[in-house]
This record gives sequence, C-alpha cells and structure tokens, in this order.
Amino acid sequence: MKNLTTSGVRDVTLDKNGFFGRFIDLVRDSVIPYQWETLNDRVPDAAPSHCIENFKIAAGEAEGEFYGYVFQDSDLAKWLEAVAYSLMTRPDPKLEATADEAIALIGRAQQPDGYLNTYYTVKEPGKRWTNLRDNHELYCAGHMMEAAAAYYTATGKRELLDIMTRMAHHIDSVLGPEDGKLHGYPGHEEVELALVAMYNVTGDPVMLKLAKYFIDERGREPRFFDIEAEKRDGHKPRWRDPGDYAQWHKPVREQDALEGHSVRALYLATGMADVARETGDETLLAACRTLYENLIRKRLYITGGVGSSPAGERFTFDYDLPNDTVYAETCASIALCFFMRAMLRIEPDAKYADTMEQALYNTCIAGMSLDGHNFFYVNPLEVWPEASHKSPEHRHALPVRPKWFGCACCPPNLARLIAGIGKYIYTTDGDTIYTQLYMSGEAKLSLPSCAVTIKTDTDYPKSGKIAITASAGKYALALRIPAYCRGKYSVSLNGAPVDKQPERGYVTIDREWTDGDTVALEIDVSPRRVYANYHVRADAGKVAIARGPVVYCLEEADNDTPLAGASLSSSSPLTCEYKPDKLGGIVEITADGSVAVDDGDDSLYRIAPPPKKPTKLTYIPYYAWANRGEGEMAVYIRED
Amino acid sequence: MKNLTTSGVRDVTLDKNGFFGRFIDLVRDSVIPYQWETLNDRVPDAAPSHCIENFKIAAGEAEGEFYGYVFQDSDLAKWLEAVAYSLMTRPDPKLEATADEAIALIGRAQQPDGYLNTYYTVKEPGKRWTNLRDNHELYCAGHMMEAAAAYYTATGKRELLDIMTRMAHHIDSVLGPEDGKLHGYPGHEEVELALVAMYNVTGDPVMLKLAKYFIDERGREPRFFDIEAEKRDGHKPRWRDPGDYAQWHKPVREQDALEGHSVRALYLATGMADVARETGDETLLAACRTLYENLIRKRLYITGGVGSSPAGERFTFDYDLPNDTVYAETCASIALCFFMRAMLRIEPDAKYADTMEQALYNTCIAGMSLDGHNFFYVNPLEVWPEASHKSPEHRHALPVRPKWFGCACCPPNLARLIAGIGKYIYTTDGDTIYTQLYMSGEAKLSLPSCAVTIKTDTDYPKSGKIAITASAGKYALALRIPAYCRGKYSVSLNGAPVDKQPERGYVTIDREWTDGDTVALEIDVSPRRVYANYHVRADAGKVAIARGPVVYCLEEADNDTPLAGASLSSSSPLTCEYKPDKLGGIVEITADGSVAVDDGDDSLYRIAPPPKKPTKLTYIPYYAWANRGEGEMAVYIRED
Repeated sequence: MKNLTTSGVRDVTLDKNGFFGRFIDLVRDSVIPYQWETLNDRVPDAAPSHCIENFKIAAGEAEGEFYGYVFQDSDLAKWLEAVAYSLMTRPDPKLEATADEAIALIGRAQQPDGYLNTYYTVKEPGKRWTNLRDNHELYCAGHMMEAAAAYYTATGKRELLDIMTRMAHHIDSVLGPEDGKLHGYPGHEEVELALVAMYNVTGDPVMLKLAKYFIDERGREPRFFDIEAEKRDGHKPRWRDPGDYAQWHKPVREQDALEGHSVRALYLATGMADVARETGDETLLAACRTLYENLIRKRLYITGGVGSSPAGERFTFDYDLPNDTVYAETCASIALCFFMRAMLRIEPDAKYADTMEQALYNTCIAGMSLDGHNFFYVNPLEVWPEASHKSPEHRHALPVRPKWFGCACCPPNLARLIAGIGKYIYTTDGDTIYTQLYMSGEAKLSLPSCAVTIKTDTDYPKSGKIAITASAGKYALALRIPAYCRGKYSVSLNGAPVDKQPERGYVTIDREWTDGDTVALEIDVSPRRVYANYHVRADAGKVAIARGPVVYCLEEADNDTPLAGASLSSSSPLTCEYKPDKLGGIVEITADGSVAVDDGDDSLYRIAPPPKKPTKLTYIPYYAWANRGEGEMAVYIRED
Repeated sequence: MKNLTTSGVRDVTLDKNGFFGRFIDLVRDSVIPYQWETLNDRVPDAAPSHCIENFKIAAGEAEGEFYGYVFQDSDLAKWLEAVAYSLMTRPDPKLEATADEAIALIGRAQQPDGYLNTYYTVKEPGKRWTNLRDNHELYCAGHMMEAAAAYYTATGKRELLDIMTRMAHHIDSVLGPEDGKLHGYPGHEEVELALVAMYNVTGDPVMLKLAKYFIDERGREPRFFDIEAEKRDGHKPRWRDPGDYAQWHKPVREQDALEGHSVRALYLATGMADVARETGDETLLAACRTLYENLIRKRLYITGGVGSSPAGERFTFDYDLPNDTVYAETCASIALCFFMRAMLRIEPDAKYADTMEQALYNTCIAGMSLDGHNFFYVNPLEVWPEASHKSPEHRHALPVRPKWFGCACCPPNLARLIAGIGKYIYTTDGDTIYTQLYMSGEAKLSLPSCAVTIKTDTDYPKSGKIAITASAGKYALALRIPAYCRGKYSVSLNGAPVDKQPERGYVTIDREWTDGDTVALEIDVSPRRVYANYHVRADAGKVAIARGPVVYCLEEADNDTPLAGASLSSSSPLTCEYKPDKLGGIVEITADGSVAVDDGDDSLYRIAPPPKKPTKLTYIPYYAWANRGEGEMAVYIRED
C-alpha cells in the first residue's frame, strides 16, 4: 500500500488575492483573535465558553466549578491547531507567546499520571473512564494531540507534544487488549486520527498501536458500551442500543455505509484510512473505499454537505437528501475533507480530490460569513425564514449565521481547516507531484530526487485557467482534471498541446523540467445544470446550477419569491457575469424562468394553478448566501 | 344570535348499505367490542390500557398502582359516549348492561366530595388541582361529562349524569372567579364544550357559568399557569412559556389563528362557539369566525387534516403545509367536525358543512382501516416507507395503521364521531331544515309546527344524485350546495326544475309539502384538479385530484414509483370507473402521466435529467390508502 506525503502547511504560500487568500486572512485576522477572546470569556455578547477558566481550575490556579460541555477542552485544542498552521505561514511572535502560555497552562492542568481533561479533573474526579460512550475524554485528547503535532511542526517546541505523549501513554495504561485494561474505544471518534498524527511526528509505536486498537475493537461483540453501561448503571441496559449513532453497530470492516452522527462517522473513516496507510491493512482500506463509494453515490449533498437529519446530526439512509430539514453540519464537511486527504495519501485518485473540493468550496466555506464574524453549524439547501422561526422541523436551519455558539465546534474547526489549507493542495508519490487543488501561490516540495518549486497563477474558480511554472528537475507533474468538466479541458506545455489521456483523473507530465517551464491547464468551468439521481425524492423535477466546483443558489435578495414557486426554463441560457463588488467578487449567473404570482385569489385551494410570470433568475455561489440579511434561499428549483 | 337544533343521533337511521353504513357497522361490531376488551386488558398483543383497573383501584376494589397516562380515564369516557350513540340507533341490552356496570364502577371510584379522577385518587391523592396545565383533570372530567350527557339521552338513565353533575359542582367549588378559588382553566381544553353539553341536558346554570369562566379567563394576565408553576416548583419559572401550545398566549377573543396543539385548539374553538351560542356573546362568535377563516384560508390540508408539525402535534404558521412531515392527527380532524357542527348551530352557512365534510370523508375515516381493526394517529399526504422507518423527521408518519396505541385517543374518538354521525347531518332553525350532509337513510325531525320525516336515497359520494322524499307539513328544506361543485348542480321538485340561487350555500324550498313529494338534487362530483395557493411551498408546481368531497391519492400498489418522480399530464382526462371489489367499492380515477425511470446511471448527480416514461396513474380515495400493505403514497404530484 502506498503512503504518500502531502504538502505541509509551511510549504505553500498562497497569494493574498487568490480565492482562498481572503478566507485565510479572515481566519488569521479575525477568527483566531476573536476565538481567543471567547475562550477567555471576554466577548460580552457571545455565549460563555469558560474553557481557559476550566484549565485554570484544573491547574489549581482558580476557584470555581467546571462549566460547559464535556468536550469544552477541545475548543482550546482546535484553536491551538489553527494557531500552529497560521504560525507556519506567517510568524507572529505575540500570537506564539499567547499560545505558549496556554500550553503551559495545559501542562499545569495535567495530572501527575499524565491524565488531561478538565471536566473529570474538576467535576467528577473519581469517575474517569467510566463513560467513554458519552463523555468525550478520548475526543478531547485527540484534538489536543492534533494540536500538539501541529504546534511542534510549526514551532519545534516539544512542550505540548510531551504533554500529549504522556497522555497517550496514560491512555495506553488504561485501554487496550491486554488483561486488566478496559477493552473500550471512544464514543466520539477523533483520537484515532490524532494518534496517527502524533505517530507521524514522534514515531512512538504506542500511538499507532492504540489507534489501530480503537479501530479494530469498535463494534465487536460483546459490545464495550453495553458492558460499560451495565457497570455504570448497575443493571443491564433496558434496550439494546442499535449503536449506529456512534458507529459501533458492527465492526468497522463490516460497515458498508457511513451511518449515524456524520462528524463521528467521518472522523472514524479518516482514522481508518490513516491506520490502513500506516499498517498496510488492505481490509481496512477496502472498508474505506466502500464507505466512500456509498457516500458519493447515495448520501452526499451536491454542496458537499452530509447528514440528512438534525436528530442526531446524522446520516439517515440512501437517497434521503431533503433540502430544507437537512443538517449538513459545517464540521461534517470539514471532516469529509480530512477523510479525502487521508484517502489521497493512500491512492492518488482524482475522485477523492473532487469530493474534497466539492465540500471545501461549498459547505465548508459557507460555514463562515464573508466578514468572518458569523458562523453556520447547519447548511441547508433551501430556506424559508418563517419556517426557521416557527416550524420545529426547520428550527435548526437558520436563515442567517449567528455570532458564536455555546457548543463552539464548527468555527474553530473551520479555522484549522482554512489555516491549514496548504496540507490539502499537493500530494507527492516518489517523484510525482499531484495537484489536488488549484490555488494561486507557490509551493516548495521535497522529492526524493530534487527539491521543486511550483508556482501557480490562477483566479480559479472564477475561471478555469491555471498557469503552473515549474522549477528544474526530473519529476512528474500529475494534474487533476476535475470530473465536473466531463473531459473538457486542455493542457499545454510551454505553449505546445499535451495530448495525454488522464489516468484516475490525472494528466501526468513526466519529464526533465527546466526552470521556467510553464504548464497551462484550462478546465471548462462553464455553468451546468445538475440533476439528482431519480431515487432522490427531494430533488425530483428540480435542477441545480453549478459552475466549476462552485454550486449556486438563488436568494430572495436577487429574485422573486416564493422560490418554491420559481422554475428555471429548460431552454434558458445560463449567462455568467463577474461582479467584482458583489459579495466579495462573484461570478453571477442569470437565467430565464418563471415564478408563481398572486392573482388576488386568496383561497387556499383552487381549480386552476396559480398563474406564472416570466422572471429573471439570479444565481450566486452557495458559499456566499446569507450575507445580505434574512431571506429565502434555494439551491434546487423546478425546471420546466 | 341563533341557537339551532341539530338532528339527534336517534332521529336518524342510516341505510346499512350507504357509504357511512359500513363505517357505523364497523364501529358497532368491531371497534366498540374491541375497545372494551382493551380497556380491560384482555387483548394480548395490544398496548396495556389498565383503564378499568385504575377505576377499580380508585374504588378500593383492587390493589395496585395507577398505570397509564394522566388522561387514561378518558378512554373509558369516550367508549361510553360511543356506546351511548350506538344504543340510540340499535338497542343492545347486553352492551347497555356492560356500560351500566362500568358506570356503577365509576360511581364507586368517585370521592365523597364529588371528585373523580383515578390518577390523582390513586397516585397523587394530595395533589389534586396543582397542575392544571399538564395533568388533564378537567380534560378527563370533560370527556366523562360528554359521555354522561349522551348516555342519559340514549337511555334516560341518570346515574352517570348525576356523577358528573356532582363532579361539575365540585369543580365549581375549586375553580372560578370568586375569592378563595383557583382562577384557573384546563391545560387541555375539552371540559368547556362538555359543560355546555351537560347544560343542554340538565339546564344547570353552574355548568354554563363554569364553561364561560374557563373560556373568558384563558390567556388573561396574570397568567394562571405561570402562577401555578411558581407555586408548584417553589420558584418563578426560568423562562416565559409562550403559552401558545395550549392557547393561553392571549385571551381567546384576541386570538386570530388556531395555534399550538391542534386538538386542544379545536376543542377550545368548539367550546367558544358553544358558549357564544348559549350566552349570545357576539365577541366570542366573532373570534370563532376569525379562527375559522384563517384556518380555511391558510392552515387546512386539502384532506381536512390540521396540524403541520409532529413536535407538539401542532399548528405552525400560515401556508406551512408539508405533505410528508405533517401531523394531521385523526383526533384533530374529528375536533374540526365538532367545531363546524357548533358553528352550524349558530349560523347556517354551508361553508362550515363543507369543511366538516372535507374532514369527515378524508382524514377522519382514513384514521381507520377498512376492516376496522387498525388506526392512524397521523395522516400524512405523502409517504415514503423507508423514511418512515429511518428518518427521524418522518418516523411519526407510519405507512401502515397499527393495531392500537398506548395513548389511545384516536380510535375511541373516531368511534364516537361515527357512532354519533346522526348529530351532524341536519340542523333545524324554526321550521327550516338544513341538510348539512347527504347520507342515505331516514330522519325524523320535530319542527315547531310539525313533525317531519325526511327520506334520503343516495349513493353519495359515489354519485352526486340525491333523492329526498318529504313528509307533509309547512316547512322549508334548505339543501346545502357544496362549494366544490362550483355551481354545477340541479334541483328539481317532483320532476320540475327549481330555479333558485343558493343563499349562504343553501337552496331553500319553502312550501307546504305533501307526503311523498320528492326533491332531486344532483351535485357535480366529476373529478377535478386542485392546486394550492401559491404561498404553499410544499405544493408548488403540484396538483391533487378530488371528486366530490373525496380527495384522492396515488399508491405504490397501483402505480410506478418513486411517486416523487411522477407527474400528471396537464392535458390528461381524468377517467372514473367504479370498482365494486376494490377497497370496499371505490370510484377509481385514472389519468396519463409520466414517471422518472432508471437509465442505469447510478451517479448521484448528472447533467441530464433522469429520463421519463409515460405511465398510467391510478388514483384511489385517500381514506382507503394503506389497506394493501406498505408502499409509497402521495396526494400531490407534479403536473406537466
């Protein structure tokens, strides 16, 4: 099995004015500082965090009670991880000093035996490891391990790495296959992928052993969470927990679809791929492929969103993709990017990068407002604001992004994804460089035979033109050709057409390069109509518009309403126009359609359909919605 | 203000082979006996009831604990009321003896001060009247009062009437405007309308006074339920209960839409109309009219269902009428019939009877299987069985009727509606007889100037032909012309056309009748396409089919699926054929349409719409759905 390297965050310098430059700047200049203030409870109108205070209390440096969710510690972890990525691309001694202080506090909150968790240390000191199912000890440890690995990579400072190594060894002393240990695994997966991240930095075999154990043990009979619940409650559980909410319904290799809580499911899948890669476990890789194929054929929203139901923030069943009651948590699409990156490290196949790009350019960045101050948890594909306010089934699908959340998982998760975006752009396999994403900037990549500098100049996804300038050396450049262009692309090398068929979605140019050689790739990003499989009830008779990787939507601010009464003419051209001053600069798409109108008949039922009038439909990128106040939004409308 | 009389149950003898004959027989022969067995816990595979046992324990005749909902007593009450109606139309000494025994038991369970409620008597003896908001004491009393009034009317036996009169006086000693009494009202309305029913039988002014008090006090500041909660919990409520769930968000005369729990809302509206009628309160009548107009213009399903959300089984907001996540509880449509009957007693207007008929012929009777053994609580307009099994948002909308329920409100409620259907057919206003419903049979009505026998011969709604034979006397016959026929009807008297315009929906023939005079009414029941108001998002671009008062649906058993992918051709004829052997005898409607098909492309998203093939669409009456196993169902499909 392959074990590809990805570009490191510090290897990639993105252009400030490229498409992602704005998001990275927002994270650096707005999200990271703002989040630090919230962690310290210094934002008066935001939900209280108490996160730093919890650590202080655990360290014996403050009085008080633990406050917050059992996973409150993870907010600080995700912040530290985002800080680490930010420091890799733009040193900031003041920020680093702040992070160092936080890490020192974490160290003081760690218990003598290596245990680290403020909830149990402060609130239930005698109850450690008694409720792995619900109480997120391993989850919090996982996030802090990810932060530790990233912070060490960013700064070379070992303190957090050592803290979390001690914690990993403590976990190993409590959990594992050996007699006398708990044969358990986390109720919320995360530590598996984090242990592999620590293993990749430290080489400590205990990390990999633990990660593999958690993966292998999950869902086996007798089921640990049943045993744990009986021990905790003093009696057998009154009903058999199906276990699918947290993916312990069967051993992971027997699972054939992502089930249950979507973030859990995708963190697990990422951990499975990571362990498969590091151990060469083909059966685990096969399971990952199966989960992926089911996902993209039956359970993925066009926006790269996942999780069809708010009850359990979960997957439901094949082809169940409601547009309005959907959950599609921002964190779940972020987790999908993690999973895809993990798969790309095992097998270069453009389909994984296509899916990653689909999640990234749509649901992930829709999670944040264009000014970086407001965040969505839930990313619906259709919003009727009155329903969001008044219908219990739609209450979770907000029409505008709130400022912050009591359960603040999504904003810091988005921060670490965006700040660390350099990790997702390239993979290298020997002397082959795969371009998985196209972003303007420069990357320095070390190949076995040479060090390479790749310069990318593009306004993608505004256009599909990508100019790549290579540095000298003998290596291969494998250019991802996104499936959405359906073969409409061209590649040239120093002006001469390259006539090669893509393999697994990549056109590979393998040669001895000279400094300044240029590759011009043009991908067709002209707008297209997209229809869902006929099994998808919610989209029957409807059409969506996409352009390149970007899915579009209609907003009330630009269109006649109700959007449910609008339809796109099947014969209409889709006209694109770049609007530099609209929503941070977007390619707007207009088309001809019709919309139902009020003819004065106020009866609820009638024998003639409501009349229609022609209307101009104006589409904007989905990620830019809900930046102009409250209104209706729809990705799909009818076509006639 | 008018105070019309309605036909009594015993006044009307319906033909056994008329449309409703089957349902009445099912209730008599199947539902009432079956329910008695469940009340006595003698049905092994049904949810336990414990209802009779609770009364025995309260009477000191059995040992044990109270079991069931706080409103468990009401199941026996509704059964007794259904028995009363059944006895009115078909004497049954054995059944009457069983009912008498149950009533004697109720009497023994009554406390010396008149109090009657097995939950509080057995389980929380010191806590009476401490939680009017949640614990249904007045609701249970109300149902038993309705039973008492009906049973007295049926049998002339006073025992239950006396029991409930004592209870009413006990309630009056506890609740009311006077100093020292609780200034409260029920958390679940029902007792208001029941007190008026008792008042109509007994003439006891305390009954009307209490009913009026509960109506008038509801929603006034300071709000009783806030005070009660503070008293109960020992502290001020932590949040302000909006109160709309149980209609105490504002005084009833200020309420402009039915809000909250739909059964509560419609029992309240019925009580409001009843009190308005008995007291001549114009402001209360105006409020009833407002609630009605909002309902029929903005909140009523085409099936006569109400309650758009399962969370709170409630109304949500104007034009929010989802077809799949809908609640549309059977009890709520039954309650709508009560409300309409109450309005028809104040003002003869065919619109109320139209709405009653809409509820009755669709959602109400859909609540019961054709064999009378299974019942729906929830009456969706669209079902995808896999969603019912696997989607949290659809789990309440079952694809097949279950046998019985732990919370058994709907089956006995349906039993009392159907057994008592004679109450709904006629109203009389002086010497005018209004025919509100058309059912084959004979009615004997006492008018101020004469006694009249009306014979109706019709297979309505199979056809729209209604032959009425009158007896001698000087009186007026006001024939309801349903609005659905849009003026397409004819009336003749002894073969000669009657050329009169309807007023408020009635064509009135006022004359000196001779025995055997015949009126022939023919209402156009040819099938029609029905479209929702353009504000209804869920039905945009879609069409439903109705024929006379009967709404139709498509079932998987007759049609290609997915139904979401089906559309009705806008140019198709709607062809009717009577199928005597199908689903108890139905007029089936067929039409031309198309349906999406599988072209072998298993991708989730595609750039060409799924192809369609022509298909024959077969519609059956909505009330007859889910009698052929599990499958998809839809009332609305697209039209193109």
